[in-house]
Amino acid sequence: MTTIDPDQKICTLINVFTVDPEKNEELFELLKTATEEVISKQPGYISANLHISDDKKTITNYAQWRSLEDFHNMIKHPAALIHMVKAAAMAKDFKPVTYGEIWSHHV
Amino acid sequence: MTTIDPDQKICTLINVFTVDPEKNEELFELLKTATEEVISKQPGYISANLHISDDKKTITNYAQWRSLEDFHNMIKHPAALIHMVKAAAMAKDFKPVTYGEIWSHHV
Repeated sequence: MTTIDPDQKICTLINVFTVDPEKNEELFELLKTATEEVISKQPGYISANLHISDDKKTITNYAQWRSLEDFHNMIKHPAALIHMVKAAAMAKDFKPVTYGEIWSHHV
Repeated sequence: MTTIDPDQKICTLINVFTVDPEKNEELFELLKTATEEVISKQPGYISANLHISDDKKTITNYAQWRSLEDFHNMIKHPAALIHMVKAAAMAKDFKPVTYGEIWSHHV
């Protein structure tokens, strides 16, 4: 299970993919395979969580890396790059953003 | 602590606010206050997690609600609406998307 903990000093990547609803499943399968076969094997990988929107127009990956440096090293890896180019071609748009600071509130 | 668990049948809201870096702190304070004083008191609220991007150009809220219906009821609440109008005026853009399906992967 992934936990969101502001005291954990890690790098969070939130990547929002905009996609035609009819291509949603294909993009999801590509991101799943990329995660299982390449991304998760890179140093510093902690977790990935693919969220499929209710309207099928968005897939958002909530991913965690030990550090921003580990994330930057991963995106330079040739096998990861191939998957990213394929995902970029399938999506209408994607916006990867990294976060180092979190504020949490719960009931 | 917030947990991301695909077996939990809840509604996840991921709201990406784009903001001028110099207004980042002001927007963060507004979203924090809105969460503490209004949003968290609405039925079905589980958690909110404000993520501040490394470049200060984005604040993303990862929030959890018991159901999509609870989330929809919250956004109709007058006090919540006032906060949302203020946040919309402060941000350059915001994209709230709801998700009912999650696939997770961990090391």
